[in-house]
Amino acid sequence: MTKQELFENIKRKQSFLCVGLDTDFKKIPEHLYEEEDPIYAFNKAIVDATARYCVAYKPNTAFYESLGTKGLWALEKTIEYIRTKYPDQFIILDAKRGDIGNTSEMYAKSAFEHLKATAITVAPYMGEDSVSPFLNYPKKWVILLALTSNKGSQDFQLVEDANGEKLFEKVLKKSQEWGTDEQLMYVVGATQGSMFADIRKHAPNHFLLVPGVGAQGGSLEEVVKYGMNKECGLLVNSSRAIIYADSSESFASAASIEAKKVQTEMAKYLQAII
Amino acid sequence: MTKQELFENIKRKQSFLCVGLDTDFKKIPEHLYEEEDPIYAFNKAIVDATARYCVAYKPNTAFYESLGTKGLWALEKTIEYIRTKYPDQFIILDAKRGDIGNTSEMYAKSAFEHLKATAITVAPYMGEDSVSPFLNYPKKWVILLALTSNKGSQDFQLVEDANGEKLFEKVLKKSQEWGTDEQLMYVVGATQGSMFADIRKHAPNHFLLVPGVGAQGGSLEEVVKYGMNKECGLLVNSSRAIIYADSSESFASAASIEAKKVQTEMAKYLQAII
Repeated sequence: MTKQELFENIKRKQSFLCVGLDTDFKKIPEHLYEEEDPIYAFNKAIVDATARYCVAYKPNTAFYESLGTKGLWALEKTIEYIRTKYPDQFIILDAKRGDIGNTSEMYAKSAFEHLKATAITVAPYMGEDSVSPFLNYPKKWVILLALTSNKGSQDFQLVEDANGEKLFEKVLKKSQEWGTDEQLMYVVGATQGSMFADIRKHAPNHFLLVPGVGAQGGSLEEVVKYGMNKECGLLVNSSRAIIYADSSESFASAASIEAKKVQTEMAKYLQAII
Repeated sequence: MTKQELFENIKRKQSFLCVGLDTDFKKIPEHLYEEEDPIYAFNKAIVDATARYCVAYKPNTAFYESLGTKGLWALEKTIEYIRTKYPDQFIILDAKRGDIGNTSEMYAKSAFEHLKATAITVAPYMGEDSVSPFLNYPKKWVILLALTSNKGSQDFQLVEDANGEKLFEKVLKKSQEWGTDEQLMYVVGATQGSMFADIRKHAPNHFLLVPGVGAQGGSLEEVVKYGMNKECGLLVNSSRAIIYADSSESFASAASIEAKKVQTEMAKYLQAII
């Protein structure tokens, strides 16, 4: 998907919501245990209930890997389902990968050729040759970790060099030598709302994937205030608050209501730019 | 496995070799394509041919993931085979994982409960709460990226803070607040031989996993000179130079010869400490 196509989807759907598919076997409604593939059945119902309110889905690979081949099979089917039934959705494989070149090539092959995701999250610690193999796929995206939403983000990401430049700022600057804003997005945690102004100094035109709204405590209003640009430039993720809104047989309609609630708020903020 | 048990294995086998199972479908001998599971058949033969010369195996998850569920199945069977037939082997899942706490918990579950590996490689960018869930398993290990062997390691790992401390040094120091040298090892690339002296200032007692000997160009002699401590403290990995030593039907005996060659050199270096 191109950046322009993503922006068109955002305008048409009045939403920049990404629904995180952190599907945990222990948290899905018990009546689904009777299904042949409970994880896939859950995801399918969640996707059908929320697709009209979001522009992206973000399955988190850890949750599927923890179930072994069964889980990977559910992941494959989920992505295939979204691609087929909702081809306008931007599908992010949240995998935080990154390794030496020949290994990153394998991860890229897995994400883009095998699973056919639109984007993958990548960790920057190993530098350029660990990231660039993911950039060789036209219309596919790398979403590089910059400033994350967890407490541990303070351990290294905020460390300043001799010139006062923080590590995450260095990641933003350096990585722009590797790819354009048509290939690269950044993960920026919503719990650090005021930092968005700083991020936008270094990456005014890039899309930012923003986790941490909802369960992790970030405010959508603040993210928009400091982070939105003229092409929106934001994909805001919500996982638990939407997919686990209800654990009864009405889980899907509860998810739909929660997604709609976020979309309605987003539509309001989008008025400023469209 | 405890640190002492690992050291006993090293002394008994006169080896600190780790064989990297970077098994690429395109590189295995063609006659294996007739097998029901060519990847597993290749790994099984390589393991049988090299187990007496090494103390560890390191399957690289990327290579298996790129084949989808089929690949993951081959990975599961490979680890199970090593665990059952060669229970003294230290099995490293080279996965470079790391995410927010609840997600790292899932990766830990996958590596240690599902796949039953002894250790997993983890990327430090997201800090303490992305690493600590992996440290909750007794006798299991986290191998944290410190200074890697690729060119891109220079992009961020060598950046100095205002006090001249490099990022990888900060990772070494900070992570020692999270776990002991009975739980934590570090990845240190062999292509940066002289840096080992610096690493040992910060982590005198830790085991170091050293990739980059062989195909990536590092020298074993230099690694030993600067990196070995009184409990050896080194696991030196070789992947391609051993497992792809020959692409004919004699691939396994060629791998055995290459592994023995490395082991013989290691035995010589071990005389200094045992």
